Amino acid sequence: MNRRSFLATSALGAAAAPLAAPALAQGRRKLTMVTSWPRGMAGVHDSAVFSAEAIGALTDGTLEVEIRSAGELVGAFEVFDAVSSGQADMYHSADYYFVNQHPAFAFFATVPFGMTAQELSIWYHHGEGAALHDELGQIFGVKSFLAGNTGAQSGGWFRREITGPEDFQGLKFRMPGLGGKALGKLGASVQNIPGGEVYQALSTGALDATEWVGPWADEKAGFYEVARFYYTAGFHEPGSALTLTLNRDLYDSLTPQQQNAVETAAILGNEKTTALFLGENAGALERLRQSGVTLSSFPESVWDAFGEAARATLEEARDGDLYDRVLDSYIASMKRSSSWLQSSEGTYRAQRDRALG
Amino acid sequence: MNRRSFLATSALGAAAAPLAAPALAQGRRKLTMVTSWPRGMAGVHDSAVFSAEAIGALTDGTLEVEIRSAGELVGAFEVFDAVSSGQADMYHSADYYFVNQHPAFAFFATVPFGMTAQELSIWYHHGEGAALHDELGQIFGVKSFLAGNTGAQSGGWFRREITGPEDFQGLKFRMPGLGGKALGKLGASVQNIPGGEVYQALSTGALDATEWVGPWADEKAGFYEVARFYYTAGFHEPGSALTLTLNRDLYDSLTPQQQNAVETAAILGNEKTTALFLGENAGALERLRQSGVTLSSFPESVWDAFGEAARATLEEARDGDLYDRVLDSYIASMKRSSSWLQSSEGTYRAQRDRALG
Repeated sequence: MNRRSFLATSALGAAAAPLAAPALAQGRRKLTMVTSWPRGMAGVHDSAVFSAEAIGALTDGTLEVEIRSAGELVGAFEVFDAVSSGQADMYHSADYYFVNQHPAFAFFATVPFGMTAQELSIWYHHGEGAALHDELGQIFGVKSFLAGNTGAQSGGWFRREITGPEDFQGLKFRMPGLGGKALGKLGASVQNIPGGEVYQALSTGALDATEWVGPWADEKAGFYEVARFYYTAGFHEPGSALTLTLNRDLYDSLTPQQQNAVETAAILGNEKTTALFLGENAGALERLRQSGVTLSSFPESVWDAFGEAARATLEEARDGDLYDRVLDSYIASMKRSSSWLQSSEGTYRAQRDRALG
Repeated sequence: MNRRSFLATSALGAAAAPLAAPALAQGRRKLTMVTSWPRGMAGVHDSAVFSAEAIGALTDGTLEVEIRSAGELVGAFEVFDAVSSGQADMYHSADYYFVNQHPAFAFFATVPFGMTAQELSIWYHHGEGAALHDELGQIFGVKSFLAGNTGAQSGGWFRREITGPEDFQGLKFRMPGLGGKALGKLGASVQNIPGGEVYQALSTGALDATEWVGPWADEKAGFYEVARFYYTAGFHEPGSALTLTLNRDLYDSLTPQQQNAVETAAILGNEKTTALFLGENAGALERLRQSGVTLSSFPESVWDAFGEAARATLEEARDGDLYDRVLDSYIASMKRSSSWLQSSEGTYRAQRDRALG
């Protein structure tokens, strides 16, 4: 804030000292960030704000990012085209919305039976993830960074209990993306209803079940009023990443300091967003429990069927090219990191929580 | 690199244009970072480099951080005093080394039966953690940021199998800090031998067992040659954080942009360091498995005994003041976040790994 005032003063000063000012004036740029989120949408809009503000602060105001939420400049799912074409400078979204551009984009958001947030970070920052994301972005003239994560999303809200995979036969379930595709293999009638209409559909029986995000967002949506069985663990979005993506020509035109600031602002957004979602979920889960919601876990037979359907869904998109390289790299990294995480932290957490009660 | 050349050129240019240059020259500062790590020590030295380089890049070279490793300017555990007194500008270390300054510092590294890396991040960035760390730092004239995490550390290397808590009676075990204190309550003969002497002590039987870090660092230390039982999950360091801590007067003298850059460089270090440790551990664990090491888990009776001893150790340090507020805040946050993490991601990870085999 103080720094902003300083810059404003300097800009005014430019009129009096034209020879000294142009470099500074030239160095300041206003950039437009389009997002896939309605303004104020819990967690995801916050995440866009984290990164936008960090870019301003880290560049000392030489870059100023103005957020245009879903529908303000372009529609929620039009942000990719807007940034690819240069109509907007950057977007904040989740890359699985763009699988029609290229199916490999799914891996940089989340895929069913895929990586947790931590595993994704290992692949991205200490494996091939970032380089593959970059290669994918080059095709479309964009430069992408992971910029947030919701953590593992819940299995969803059901009007009746699930006792085995056969209960999904004919079940009218709202689930978008590859997770929905996998669920279809279990016989579910998968529907993709816009968020704002889900509550109504669930209350009238037009839907038997829905997934949403996690306790915090789900509580705000009120699903506990119309479905009593809440499956806290799900298979469809085990760690949904958000991305900050710039038009590549714009990115290339930034100074090295500004490029560094943008990349780091995304990492900052990732850390703060994950802490926000996971921190808020905990309190919301407790309130849901107290309100009488039945907290459930799917039986192992359901997990087995999920796993098979998810793997088949991922394999179907093989293209003998970039998709295959992304899939194979992703699966290999997940196997490596999950073996360590489960035998160390996973075991620790389960034993600690059991022993402390 | 290019940017450095540019700055060097600008500095040379200053001689020719003295009226334009002073602001730039004045704005550049060289800062000394002392660390608790020998130069090149795997993971922890890397982590110091991540943050030091990020500070340089994000401030466009107005701050340049020179690393002075353990013993180069001050000893490994003297870094706190050096920064508190202003002899050095900042340190990179783990705050549990400084529990003699104040026992609450332990919580900003790790405590037995405490938080995982993810839980710590929730408390720190979306709870009271950062504010309490700041309050603690004010007492000593320092300003601290979390800047890395090793992930859950292994239970350690044993020359014989552990079948119950009674096996710790008289066991000569190397474990520093509060974890060692808790282990002493189980009857172990706890020893704190410097890292470089542990291999020798273990091979001669002067030690029966040791903990170290995790597969990656442990493999480099060669413990698998002299102890065959490796307990992958441990209770003593479930997510050891590293910290970047500045002399407070120095921090206050920085511009808002520079302060932002330092804070963000710490967060960047945290993300990259965690990915590094967890990514490398996975491959090292596989190599250890192939070399014939027996990978084990402690029986539940041992976890129960650990849990009781750990809780008693944390309670003993109550002071009716800041320690109590830190402990109570930490435990409450851990309970909230762990309940969600275990029922969502924990369940997911266990089921996925089981179903995929």
